[in-house]
Amino acid sequence: MAQLLPARPYVGTRDFYPEDMRLRNWYFNKIRKFAASFCYEEVQGPLLESFDLFAAKSGEELVKEQVYHFYDKGNRHLAIRPEMTPTVARMVAGRLNDLRVPIRWFSIANFMRYERPQKGRLREFYQLNVDILGVEGTRADIEVIDFIISLLNDFGADSSMFRVKISNRRLFNDVINDILKVDTDAMIISKAIDKKAKISPEKYTAWLKESGLSDERIGELDEIMSMGFKELKKILPADSRGAEELSQLFDDAEKLGLSQYLEFDLAVVRGLEYYTGTVFEVYDLSPENKRALFGGGRYDNLIGLFKKEAMTGIGFGMGDVIFQDFLQTHGLIPEGVGAEEKLLVAVFPEVPYAEYLKLSKEWRAVGLRCAVYAGASSRIKKQIQFAEKENYRYLIIMGGDEFANGTVTVKDLQNSEQWLWERKTAVQNLIKK
Amino acid sequence: MAQLLPARPYVGTRDFYPEDMRLRNWYFNKIRKFAASFCYEEVQGPLLESFDLFAAKSGEELVKEQVYHFYDKGNRHLAIRPEMTPTVARMVAGRLNDLRVPIRWFSIANFMRYERPQKGRLREFYQLNVDILGVEGTRADIEVIDFIISLLNDFGADSSMFRVKISNRRLFNDVINDILKVDTDAMIISKAIDKKAKISPEKYTAWLKESGLSDERIGELDEIMSMGFKELKKILPADSRGAEELSQLFDDAEKLGLSQYLEFDLAVVRGLEYYTGTVFEVYDLSPENKRALFGGGRYDNLIGLFKKEAMTGIGFGMGDVIFQDFLQTHGLIPEGVGAEEKLLVAVFPEVPYAEYLKLSKEWRAVGLRCAVYAGASSRIKKQIQFAEKENYRYLIIMGGDEFANGTVTVKDLQNSEQWLWERKTAVQNLIKK
Repeated sequence: MAQLLPARPYVGTRDFYPEDMRLRNWYFNKIRKFAASFCYEEVQGPLLESFDLFAAKSGEELVKEQVYHFYDKGNRHLAIRPEMTPTVARMVAGRLNDLRVPIRWFSIANFMRYERPQKGRLREFYQLNVDILGVEGTRADIEVIDFIISLLNDFGADSSMFRVKISNRRLFNDVINDILKVDTDAMIISKAIDKKAKISPEKYTAWLKESGLSDERIGELDEIMSMGFKELKKILPADSRGAEELSQLFDDAEKLGLSQYLEFDLAVVRGLEYYTGTVFEVYDLSPENKRALFGGGRYDNLIGLFKKEAMTGIGFGMGDVIFQDFLQTHGLIPEGVGAEEKLLVAVFPEVPYAEYLKLSKEWRAVGLRCAVYAGASSRIKKQIQFAEKENYRYLIIMGGDEFANGTVTVKDLQNSEQWLWERKTAVQNLIKK
Repeated sequence: MAQLLPARPYVGTRDFYPEDMRLRNWYFNKIRKFAASFCYEEVQGPLLESFDLFAAKSGEELVKEQVYHFYDKGNRHLAIRPEMTPTVARMVAGRLNDLRVPIRWFSIANFMRYERPQKGRLREFYQLNVDILGVEGTRADIEVIDFIISLLNDFGADSSMFRVKISNRRLFNDVINDILKVDTDAMIISKAIDKKAKISPEKYTAWLKESGLSDERIGELDEIMSMGFKELKKILPADSRGAEELSQLFDDAEKLGLSQYLEFDLAVVRGLEYYTGTVFEVYDLSPENKRALFGGGRYDNLIGLFKKEAMTGIGFGMGDVIFQDFLQTHGLIPEGVGAEEKLLVAVFPEVPYAEYLKLSKEWRAVGLRCAVYAGASSRIKKQIQFAEKENYRYLIIMGGDEFANGTVTVKDLQNSEQWLWERKTAVQNLIKK
């Protein structure tokens, strides 16, 4: 006999057994309903995209490290999607003439990234993506911030549990080019800042030096990084578009009663190169788990990969692994989520099996969940055991006598009650209970 | 500037724009609800599996033709799942000691196969998979047949639209080995029969001859293929397990009133090698579209790839592309499916933008779908046009005067009516309409 194959899934991927799936369906369906309340429409793209689509945007090397890619038989270089935004941009570009702005889209899809599996990070993950496209200025920015806070509120999370840290790429550029007067590409410096929390102070300083900052400039940058937004604004040029956008955003947030959720943080830069304006990260505030949950920002040029036209957009992606951790950490998952009441029809050899199938149809006809035991054992004890372990609430018993008399016994396994009813009226009797 | 990338998706894959997604969500959610009514639990497996998992079962060569496969950095040979059953078997094997039979599982997932894209067949497709495991005999078989017919009934399909063609692998073996007395592996002959409709009669005959059948035997086989089940049963050995299983299945189906949907057809063999007993195919009866929609069968040995134990199962997979075609062909998709009433808040420059966001929250708070226009134009005509084209039912107008007076105008875009209401009571007024 051939060697047995391992029963575990590929490293960094998950099998979703019924209880896992109930949980995932519960929160994704809640999210779907929430997104619909904001009039976002669900979309979906292909699992595979041209490798160039991702390489064009994030740099080929970075992409090659994280992306599962290969050539098909037609020698097309393909990638399993590692993120959604490029696909959204492609889809918008594909129907540029038919779509009306603002475009409000969301999607929930599976993605692959070659990662070392760790807490909150796997190779296969599901992600909610939310984008609003075609809106200049900050109207879309405040909408997305409001969307995120309201969504987390909808799950019962309050301002003691999370914070939205906000910055702006244009503002960051102004800091580098106009305050520090360094002519290095701000993107290079931002990458060091993005990694600051993960590397040693020495490494951070060395990185900045390599990026062309003198010791003096590094000291100034440190000082600026610790400033509040109002303080920083005073030393920015009066025409700083980034500062203006952030001001507007904070003003609107205050009017909407969202200020307690927001925090200015110049260190929020986001790793992806395509962000151009507002950038934000949602932070878990629980002491044992302090970290960025997810983030997003404004991108102005993505459509430009496909069309000569430009269309601005802002959006975010939220992964299932980290979101589920967040809900669990803060006790936001209700007991017995997604489980509905089920009925099991017990089976006895003295009644033709098809009669049990007929019986189960009677209960399903009114919208109840009902299965026939179907297992080999006709021992009632075994069948009750199965029903209890598989969370069936009721057992429907129709032995030989009951079948002959046109009756059924309905047993409530939760409350240890049972009733002998006419088969004809049993369904209605139970519904009335 | 770099060359523009194509905006179309990878060949054989699809972009799901909002209207496509509404349709898919409608029927998959309906299916989810239906499966729950039969007490099937939703599960999900990983996108990537070990290549061996598929090669072990269907033969490496066949798999290499159809499966997207590659090596990861750890030199693991991986495949993008082309089907679900091996994953289900792996998941069952992984928790063999904790799972209680009968196991009733379903899943809806995306798959990839390297196909020449054609009507009803694409490279990326979604598939419903339904399996019941751990039930010997025919109880699970009749349940799955009932499940399929009831599911199609639930979508409004009746016996004029589809037929379930049934056979049995064991019965087929008995035909080959006991009636024709040919000692060729019945699987080899079944492959010719599986392809009969797609190849010329000459090619078919030549294939059978290569498989070891004489002209005489081929003539006998033709005769047997045209027999009804009762006629065939008479010439089968009395202890034919396949004949017994089929008899039981047809008897149960008759008691359940399903006979008009069923048809015995010895030509139903299914391509996959792992089937061992009952096999079936669902046929579209529309004259312009006569073909197999989907199928399935019983497999007894799949768990054996991973564990020494065996567990029997029966199931089917139904692809979205072909199912959607079926619904469309028979006019079973309701008008405006999945679209819900939406409200759009119009925007005017004389009122602070945040006030419109606040207003939209008031409407969402009662469960309505509401968005703020957010576009650049403040012309009411433009905003009405956007609302109409994007299927918003109501426009909420709060200009400078209304804002000052605490009122809003609600415009019903479908019936060209409008009302001026106190802002405080507007939500309740509309709900009462």
